[in-house]
Amino acid sequence: MTARIHNFNPGPAALPLTVLEETSEAMLDFKGSGMSIAEVSHRSTVFEEVVHHSVSRVKRLLNLSEDYKVLFLQGGASLQFSMVPMNLIPQGMAADYINTGTWATKAIKEAEILGKPYTVIASSEDRNFSYIPEDYHVSTGAAYLHYTSNNTIKGTQWNSTPMAGKVPLISDMSSDIFSRPFVPAPFGLIYAGAQKNLGPAGVTLVIIREDMLERSPKNIPTMLRYSTHAEKNSLYNTPPCISIFMVSLVLKWIEETIGGLEAMERRNRQKATMLYDYMDKSDFYVGTADKNSRSMMNLTFRLKSEELEKKFIAESAKNSLGGLKGHRSVGGCRASIYNAIEPESVKALIDFMKEFARKNG
Amino acid sequence: MTARIHNFNPGPAALPLTVLEETSEAMLDFKGSGMSIAEVSHRSTVFEEVVHHSVSRVKRLLNLSEDYKVLFLQGGASLQFSMVPMNLIPQGMAADYINTGTWATKAIKEAEILGKPYTVIASSEDRNFSYIPEDYHVSTGAAYLHYTSNNTIKGTQWNSTPMAGKVPLISDMSSDIFSRPFVPAPFGLIYAGAQKNLGPAGVTLVIIREDMLERSPKNIPTMLRYSTHAEKNSLYNTPPCISIFMVSLVLKWIEETIGGLEAMERRNRQKATMLYDYMDKSDFYVGTADKNSRSMMNLTFRLKSEELEKKFIAESAKNSLGGLKGHRSVGGCRASIYNAIEPESVKALIDFMKEFARKNG
Repeated sequence: MTARIHNFNPGPAALPLTVLEETSEAMLDFKGSGMSIAEVSHRSTVFEEVVHHSVSRVKRLLNLSEDYKVLFLQGGASLQFSMVPMNLIPQGMAADYINTGTWATKAIKEAEILGKPYTVIASSEDRNFSYIPEDYHVSTGAAYLHYTSNNTIKGTQWNSTPMAGKVPLISDMSSDIFSRPFVPAPFGLIYAGAQKNLGPAGVTLVIIREDMLERSPKNIPTMLRYSTHAEKNSLYNTPPCISIFMVSLVLKWIEETIGGLEAMERRNRQKATMLYDYMDKSDFYVGTADKNSRSMMNLTFRLKSEELEKKFIAESAKNSLGGLKGHRSVGGCRASIYNAIEPESVKALIDFMKEFARKNG
Repeated sequence: MTARIHNFNPGPAALPLTVLEETSEAMLDFKGSGMSIAEVSHRSTVFEEVVHHSVSRVKRLLNLSEDYKVLFLQGGASLQFSMVPMNLIPQGMAADYINTGTWATKAIKEAEILGKPYTVIASSEDRNFSYIPEDYHVSTGAAYLHYTSNNTIKGTQWNSTPMAGKVPLISDMSSDIFSRPFVPAPFGLIYAGAQKNLGPAGVTLVIIREDMLERSPKNIPTMLRYSTHAEKNSLYNTPPCISIFMVSLVLKWIEETIGGLEAMERRNRQKATMLYDYMDKSDFYVGTADKNSRSMMNLTFRLKSEELEKKFIAESAKNSLGGLKGHRSVGGCRASIYNAIEPESVKALIDFMKEFARKNG
């Protein structure tokens, strides 16, 4: 077996080794069933327990009240971009959106395609989405306020939950869910594609407050209606069993190995601080996000020329540091240091960056 | 590790052992990348090749012309039930449906929810869906004719492709795709949830003819539009990588180990014939489907009383024969003998059935 690399991929991303090992075993025999996790019925007691335990862990980790339903759906955040306005903007209401980059823009576009009324109440497009807007006014009586909590491509992140008064918050937390604690009460709905902080690709976590379930119009297809999945505990149709199983293992790792979200945040803050501190001292690497909007998950930076960036990415790969290329839409470099990235990997990256700067400075 | 059982689950279902073994290894290191298949980027060359090879194998196995696109989507057949009428019934047209059971009924319901015009041109509901209708008249100028090629719950299957003239056929082939060859030309679209004959749950195969791609109205959400996925070769958003990888291994197994669809059909016919022949000789087990409509994939049968059926299912499970309970909506017994089920497993089932009949006759 090839030695594991330091994996800074933006998603699908690194997972805890214990999760991979346990899945590798379950692929051959799942809990002594004589079947693989890929072969067991989703209606078997042994699989229903996986779903049940995962829901319980999500509720405990986020300290959710009984008003919330925890669902495991398919289609990624990309499908949520349309399910949210389709279900949650009732006739006569309009939604508010804050635009902080590519993913928020895509979410807004789906409200537009559906012909739903909406207002973009703030945007950081004027400076290439390099900051989180602080100046916004939520519309009175808005159906919801939608925002993207962390922007993987631009390397920015909300430091705190936006204030929206009585308007329910909806957040795409795909790239920072379970990276830190937050108060769930203001949220009507939270969604997250699993493939960054939560598991492999193929499953989407949706947390929905019960009052939101009643909003859906009647002409919504069954599979696109939140209440369908809430009523059947995510087992309306055959769910992505392997992905859900792996999420259950990641949740267990967060809760039992790391020790919960406060400990997770300390660990993440320590990793990000190490890397930002080094970048700020260096004049070789330049961060692209405003300092007070910087992401703890995706650290974006540039070198002096595109040629040098190419060399940096090629040489880092040769040194077992993977995934450091910036998103194809913006270029540059990016280190994604999600929950599962060990502090040792960040140290290895900094060592390489120092050496590369010394040789090419 | 527990010994493998004979797994007659209706889906998720048994997979070839070699597929499970290779996936188990790839879970720790994928093709020497130093990453798990769960951790590699969907935009990496190594993963794009998985998609590319899978598409090529599907095209070769089904002998598809260049007019067809092969897609890997999420949401199962259940999401296709709504994507089909949403995209493929243009303004001013109506669709034809043939109702042969639970899944066809669900497909029809989604056209109804969307307010799309449709006609059910034939149904076998009058005799509890125990047969495939032979008498139907396709509407001139229909948008499509939709049918379910195999009915997992009722144990019936179309022996041949319905005749629809110039009207494009659309078929839910979730439970018999790749079980036998067929001529693809009359089909506008074919879909199949992977978890029966094709891989694990979490990915849906969609085969679409290019002329169908142009039908979609403008107000369809991006993720629900077939052309979105066709243009991006199933990589518009992060796909379910592990499930697609496992499908690629199953396709390889069909093509290289079994030797293609003619060989697959011979193997499936041999398995089904063994079991039906025994059932027909016995007066202890009674098949529920009409003889000329019987499925090669799902064999449904009853015993003399529900009490005896309960005992049969419990004792079979103790003898390492799993998944023999009929669908919760109809009761009775069902042996699902999809592609991956070895003839030895069918023999073991028949041996058990003989012994059980002897003891309880």
